[in-house]
Amino acid sequence: MTLYEKLAFEIEETVRRGVFAVGERVPSVRQASAQHGVSIKTVLHAYALLESRGVLETRPQSGYFVRELPASPAFSQAASQPPPVASKVDVSRLVLSTLRSIRSQDATPLGSPYPDPSLFPWRRINQLANAIARRHSSWNLMDDLPPGNPELIRQIARRYAENGVPVDPDEIVITVGATEAINLSLQAVAKPGDTVAVESPTYYAMLHAIERLGMRAIEVPTHPAEGIDIDALAIIIREHRIAACMVMPNFQNPLGFVMSDANKERLVGLLASHEIPVIENDVYQELYYGEARPSALKNFDKKGLVLHCASFSKSLTASYRIGWAMPGRYRREVEKLKFLNTLTTPSVPQIAVADYLRQGGYDRHLRHVRKVYRQQARLMIAMVTRFFPAGTHLSTPMGGYVLWVQLPGNVDSMQLYETALALGITIGPGTMFSSRDAFRHFIRLNYSYPWNVQTEAAVKTLGELVAGMAREKIRD
Amino acid sequence: MTLYEKLAFEIEETVRRGVFAVGERVPSVRQASAQHGVSIKTVLHAYALLESRGVLETRPQSGYFVRELPASPAFSQAASQPPPVASKVDVSRLVLSTLRSIRSQDATPLGSPYPDPSLFPWRRINQLANAIARRHSSWNLMDDLPPGNPELIRQIARRYAENGVPVDPDEIVITVGATEAINLSLQAVAKPGDTVAVESPTYYAMLHAIERLGMRAIEVPTHPAEGIDIDALAIIIREHRIAACMVMPNFQNPLGFVMSDANKERLVGLLASHEIPVIENDVYQELYYGEARPSALKNFDKKGLVLHCASFSKSLTASYRIGWAMPGRYRREVEKLKFLNTLTTPSVPQIAVADYLRQGGYDRHLRHVRKVYRQQARLMIAMVTRFFPAGTHLSTPMGGYVLWVQLPGNVDSMQLYETALALGITIGPGTMFSSRDAFRHFIRLNYSYPWNVQTEAAVKTLGELVAGMAREKIRD
Repeated sequence: MTLYEKLAFEIEETVRRGVFAVGERVPSVRQASAQHGVSIKTVLHAYALLESRGVLETRPQSGYFVRELPASPAFSQAASQPPPVASKVDVSRLVLSTLRSIRSQDATPLGSPYPDPSLFPWRRINQLANAIARRHSSWNLMDDLPPGNPELIRQIARRYAENGVPVDPDEIVITVGATEAINLSLQAVAKPGDTVAVESPTYYAMLHAIERLGMRAIEVPTHPAEGIDIDALAIIIREHRIAACMVMPNFQNPLGFVMSDANKERLVGLLASHEIPVIENDVYQELYYGEARPSALKNFDKKGLVLHCASFSKSLTASYRIGWAMPGRYRREVEKLKFLNTLTTPSVPQIAVADYLRQGGYDRHLRHVRKVYRQQARLMIAMVTRFFPAGTHLSTPMGGYVLWVQLPGNVDSMQLYETALALGITIGPGTMFSSRDAFRHFIRLNYSYPWNVQTEAAVKTLGELVAGMAREKIRD
Repeated sequence: MTLYEKLAFEIEETVRRGVFAVGERVPSVRQASAQHGVSIKTVLHAYALLESRGVLETRPQSGYFVRELPASPAFSQAASQPPPVASKVDVSRLVLSTLRSIRSQDATPLGSPYPDPSLFPWRRINQLANAIARRHSSWNLMDDLPPGNPELIRQIARRYAENGVPVDPDEIVITVGATEAINLSLQAVAKPGDTVAVESPTYYAMLHAIERLGMRAIEVPTHPAEGIDIDALAIIIREHRIAACMVMPNFQNPLGFVMSDANKERLVGLLASHEIPVIENDVYQELYYGEARPSALKNFDKKGLVLHCASFSKSLTASYRIGWAMPGRYRREVEKLKFLNTLTTPSVPQIAVADYLRQGGYDRHLRHVRKVYRQQARLMIAMVTRFFPAGTHLSTPMGGYVLWVQLPGNVDSMQLYETALALGITIGPGTMFSSRDAFRHFIRLNYSYPWNVQTEAAVKTLGELVAGMAREKIRD
């Protein structure tokens, strides 16, 4: 990003945060030059860019003023209405081929499911890993047999305790990322052919676990702001034999909601009354935009039926692949399955993360990441609002780093995905989030990557493609 | 080990290698002092030790002479005779609790399934990992999506090609150790409830894969020197619906045999004629004592029915957990299951191993390891022969680092395991190697760790315990 682009973004952010109200005059070119310590020319460039973007307008002889920004077209507040039918799951080939195409380094990674790794404190973690490598002459594989490295387990338990979740360290089993934690948890409570209740849309990692074990998924109506519809779930439980439920109560991927404490408690209570275990995917627990980490279903678990899964892959280091499960009454079974599945989780990554947690700095890092994601959420919403045609609707993410976008008309997200990919832009097509090929006119956009002109150009191009495809649909 | 103990072992090795024949005179104390560059006193100490061990004898005025060494009581040459019945598998709790107790650092690790990590070139591998950490600011998880890091795959394919196995790099899928490779391979070809044919005894990693997926195992008579009885297998195939076969044709754990090329070809042919896939566990492929790496079943695979699994955990680095599968015609399915199971294998370990393989030095390292294991195999056989009571029988390992010991009478290896553990000595009880609680009077001993007085004392103690328990059995 050039200096003037950077300045323009800073000023736009100030406007979005309401420091300057609509119609208000922003600092003069001379004032801004002094404030920001840049040349007059840079400020002029930045103001011209903001004018072209519709953020500012000039009034002759008076200076630059804040224009009215378009309101973000929030999502319709109705819950999804999936048919109450259990179906086989076969979504992984689509997801894998999508991720593969996203891998291409030149493409704008709006379709990536992963957070921007450049925000991770990789330098510190690498230093720790190197120190461990020097300290130990060699590792004995057996030192980290399931449940895993004792010090790492202690550190994870400590963080939960600090967040009001009393955790017995003996309940924690370290896994290869949350992927393995979710897989083993599901395997511990259900068997091939069983039916599992999921949100609609649901994060495809959940669908993968169901597919891996040859189970069936039944999608439950899910409200974009409140989460899974507990009344609808109660009916499904009466009418189907549900072996387990899988949910993401905090910053659900792709919808971004947080379930209220009341709803979390009600959900856990409903499932407990039927002795149905629930697998809670809480991988975004640290990426909240509010004041504090939201509660987990685990907080309300009285019967040990909540199998809580999480990882450091979204908040600290993705390449280390360190996750964990707290499987309640299924702890012994999950530990055994971990041993059967991958024997141990690699040692050095476990010790390096434990060292990092012990030495402090994680909370400072997280505060920074949360601030960045919160800002970039606003920027992404503003860009999509500006560039996408009328009839587009957006989610309101409360944490995490993805935006869920409903395209107008019947624009096909797979067609958009293919066209955009040819132009070097990736998106997450909506069909990845359903066991029944639904959400065809939805896309998921990742906003964790640093905002730059390439991103902005990509969002603009996407908006133009969507507009063109919507017009064609109407003509058809 | 003190200097004189070291010297004693060196001389004993020379005797065992036949440099000095039985009845021959060994160098005088003065000559040995000059040859080995040690003091007269050290040689006297060493010779006294060898005398007390029964390796040398003194003849007045004549010096030290080689005594007749007891012959190693080799294994009976009959194949095992398991009943032809498929059974559920539930061996993992025993194995995990055994490994846990072995973890205790003070115990003599004769029961460990893992090679001594101090032999690994960990310093070099760590240096490479550190260099990678410095080179890359951060890793993108997506760079190593299944099938895995392309350069590592290329290096693995190159090694196979150099060993006469033409491998299409596109067939290789990187996994979290061979454990995951075996699990995914089995899952790709069979389903819960299916029956899988295994050797008898069989390596428990195979049994774990069967247990993990809720399948049934049927044990096939297995010859201690020739491997699985192919005629017996043919009969089982006629009488049972066999979904898959799992074998370890090279340096089988625990028996240590290598199947002949003729038998390998016949086995692959038999299974191919019934379209039965075979999972080949070849983790010890590099740890041969002979002139060259033995062939794999994969060499004889014409129909893509061999799912070949291996890893670097036994020969290069255990803590990195890098394995791979070459699943023949099941390649796409295994790749998909890898994606579902653990998403990716951690990147840095993959790149570090690829760098190590590219830079050379692996073959030199392997030559050293093979020599050490070959020597230590002879030492372990000599010690067990000396200290265990009559009626003990031993395997003849052709590679790897474990010895399979048949205890005399009906000595119970679980009882021996418990008693030895209380004395700080671990062993591998034989029941871990069967789905039907067989091999109760067998134990597995690991001889990869450097030989020292503690090891020798442990083998002596074990021998005394076995002798005592055998006497009790007779008295009962």
